Amino acid sequence: MRVFPAIRVPPDAGQADIHLAWEFPEGVAVNPIKVGICGLGTVGSGTYNVLTRNAKEIASRVGTDIVIAEIGARRDNPNCDTGSVPVNRDVFALAENPEIDIIVELIGGTTVAKELVLKAVANGKHVVTANKALIAEYGNEIFAAAAEHGVTVAFEAAVAGGIPIIKALREGLAGNKIDWLAGIINGTGNFILTEMREKGRDFNDVLAEAQALGYAEADPTFDVEGIDAAHKLVILASLAFGIPLQFDKAYTEGISRISQEDVTYAEQLGYRIKHLGIARDTDKGIELRVHPTLIPEKRLIANVNGVMNAVMVQSDAVGPTLYYGAGAGSEPTASAVVADIVDVARTLTAGPENRVPYLSFQQSALSSHPVLPIDDVETAYYLRMSAVDRPGVLSKVAQILSDDGISIEALIQKEPAEGQNLVPMIILTNRTVEGKLSAAVSRIEGLESIVGEVTRIRVESLAG
Amino acid sequence: MRVFPAIRVPPDAGQADIHLAWEFPEGVAVNPIKVGICGLGTVGSGTYNVLTRNAKEIASRVGTDIVIAEIGARRDNPNCDTGSVPVNRDVFALAENPEIDIIVELIGGTTVAKELVLKAVANGKHVVTANKALIAEYGNEIFAAAAEHGVTVAFEAAVAGGIPIIKALREGLAGNKIDWLAGIINGTGNFILTEMREKGRDFNDVLAEAQALGYAEADPTFDVEGIDAAHKLVILASLAFGIPLQFDKAYTEGISRISQEDVTYAEQLGYRIKHLGIARDTDKGIELRVHPTLIPEKRLIANVNGVMNAVMVQSDAVGPTLYYGAGAGSEPTASAVVADIVDVARTLTAGPENRVPYLSFQQSALSSHPVLPIDDVETAYYLRMSAVDRPGVLSKVAQILSDDGISIEALIQKEPAEGQNLVPMIILTNRTVEGKLSAAVSRIEGLESIVGEVTRIRVESLAG
Repeated sequence: MRVFPAIRVPPDAGQADIHLAWEFPEGVAVNPIKVGICGLGTVGSGTYNVLTRNAKEIASRVGTDIVIAEIGARRDNPNCDTGSVPVNRDVFALAENPEIDIIVELIGGTTVAKELVLKAVANGKHVVTANKALIAEYGNEIFAAAAEHGVTVAFEAAVAGGIPIIKALREGLAGNKIDWLAGIINGTGNFILTEMREKGRDFNDVLAEAQALGYAEADPTFDVEGIDAAHKLVILASLAFGIPLQFDKAYTEGISRISQEDVTYAEQLGYRIKHLGIARDTDKGIELRVHPTLIPEKRLIANVNGVMNAVMVQSDAVGPTLYYGAGAGSEPTASAVVADIVDVARTLTAGPENRVPYLSFQQSALSSHPVLPIDDVETAYYLRMSAVDRPGVLSKVAQILSDDGISIEALIQKEPAEGQNLVPMIILTNRTVEGKLSAAVSRIEGLESIVGEVTRIRVESLAG
Repeated sequence: MRVFPAIRVPPDAGQADIHLAWEFPEGVAVNPIKVGICGLGTVGSGTYNVLTRNAKEIASRVGTDIVIAEIGARRDNPNCDTGSVPVNRDVFALAENPEIDIIVELIGGTTVAKELVLKAVANGKHVVTANKALIAEYGNEIFAAAAEHGVTVAFEAAVAGGIPIIKALREGLAGNKIDWLAGIINGTGNFILTEMREKGRDFNDVLAEAQALGYAEADPTFDVEGIDAAHKLVILASLAFGIPLQFDKAYTEGISRISQEDVTYAEQLGYRIKHLGIARDTDKGIELRVHPTLIPEKRLIANVNGVMNAVMVQSDAVGPTLYYGAGAGSEPTASAVVADIVDVARTLTAGPENRVPYLSFQQSALSSHPVLPIDDVETAYYLRMSAVDRPGVLSKVAQILSDDGISIEALIQKEPAEGQNLVPMIILTNRTVEGKLSAAVSRIEGLESIVGEVTRIRVESLAG
């Protein structure tokens, strides 16, 4: 790539000289910026299509063409005609190609992808990736290498697909102290919970359909057990609070045990159940947790349905803000990949001091504020249990809760069904520390008038 | 300001040399970046407070301190203790202060503010402003001057307060062709419409309260007649479609004529009435319009209530995205001002080629795509009229509409109230061109069985 014939500023320059450097004509002609796309699956083909279809639009934003110099893919993609762009079966060859300025890693996984990214970085190439697992689990190591080699590693597409949430946290909210964030950051889980609520369907039934529709993988564990969401949450928390990536410290609970009755009772209480990733900055430490959550139905985020994603951020200056859009899919994810390519293209001739830090805060300024164990996290709780239909059961349960300083905010107690002597009892508690609640619940489960396990779901008001 | 001792790239440098420039230690020590705040009103004091309170947080994001070198204000603000920062009664003096890198214009209005911004630009200072009227009406002139002097003029705070919508359009969606956007971009109007719907109150009643609460100005024209929203829409449209700012071409209609019955009938039809700014890119030209709009109640943006703002953007790659937050107020607006200061701080030692263009597209690439006159705009319509309670009236009205190729999608016809012979008739039409609808409406108003004017409100599905 040719460098702009700009007047550069000598180290001893004064204000006046700096302005000289700024007196620079619009729309400087430069050689195109060359990207290498590694991986030609769903996101890779989407990136190829968007860069090609919107080439003129993108060039007139950047001020120079962005050209796909080479594609690295083990196999072709029947849904993507790569025209005259050379396709290399060896993705590592792209990291060695001196023509390429930016390596776009869209392979997925954490083995080949990690090796590729580190090799590209070592060769002084900027990297754009959509790989949430790679960043959440190996980001600290990757960013250290990138800093050493003075290159950018951009990952907007790794969280919430096409929603520019990473840019919002790193730049748009840069003046704020961020208090907490809560996000619907897995479309499959949100689709399942939406169908369960709107159509009264069961979890397994909807999951099967989601798999048929291609929303869910054959092995749905990553989605429904919250691992995918935890990867994204860990990244968002680092950007928000300036802590290193700590995937191993995230608490993760899936939605596979949410029953139709819980969805119904939640609605009767004025709540919706959403699978949220929540990160909160407290004096004691950082909360980092993914779990099903009851939230008031009047909250905007409670009305985010189907496969759509949304992230709500609470900050000290701006207050609550929310970002909504498609969290996955070929072109929505490609939209974020291309936005990163455009950002990187703009920094190609600038120094590192002109760039946004990888994790929003300067690497040297990352904090050691600890991540809180889940037992120390305070929330309110929804409890559902089966009680023998007999006087005094509620008072026993209430007694156990109050012994731990937990009070009851709301209660639903049903008549037993015909020929049954078990009644469902639903309790909303006030806010308490998880450790206390767990102790109380095990004592409640010990009552001979309570049959089976107590179902517990955390409750968050998400009040701005 | 001292310049980083970075290795700068000679014009004839190759790839290898450029990487040298990137091999640069993290957290370079530099002299603080100095800002001058002009105007110490609501936003000015909020900016002072946020920059002061979050100084450490901001510095660890930017990598250098941001210092308020001087404040320019005609009078002090009792709600803002400016400590030891020198306050100058002459704002123009700040534009001459060689110490100051960035002038923050928070005076408002288009006279002094314009003179100040142009003077700052002429003196080679970067500018951050929250002034929507100034940018919408004089932005083209200001950006030309800024380009000539190689400085940035940033204005995130000019639209939707603390919501980083300008950054989303210019950067986050840079890979997309944007099809249309629709925004609730005036909090006062949204507060009034929300109260009318939720509490069945009348427009004037709520407006009076909004004025008492300080949401609405003593002269509410700017807010309720849509002028403020039009200023913001014109800016958003330029960023989205790459057209010059054309405030004089925007169609503006306020909410002062929305009656309680319209709100109620809209709800019966499954819609909410919102005061939207809508910009759409069509083959014939750009739609640029602010008016009350019926939107389906299930849309997320239909559930944005009170003084909150939201902007929905429909793009070709990512599809629909939505951005929600506080659109006004001291610290929410300051949040955007500070985000701009941080952005500008990062570009101080970079060349213009490393910056995001003022209007998202390179100045040289702005398009001449025309703005459509409102008569050529196509939407569906809500029509409310008073009809004499007599057979055949509906058929006459339907005949007039069908003569113009307009069909009826939904209809509400009420029984006359006791002792009345006039019945309200509410019609939802299919999509049609405004010119045709206007012609049909005037013929309907000519029917002797129709009494008084026909109320018309545009309907948008906002389908992604």
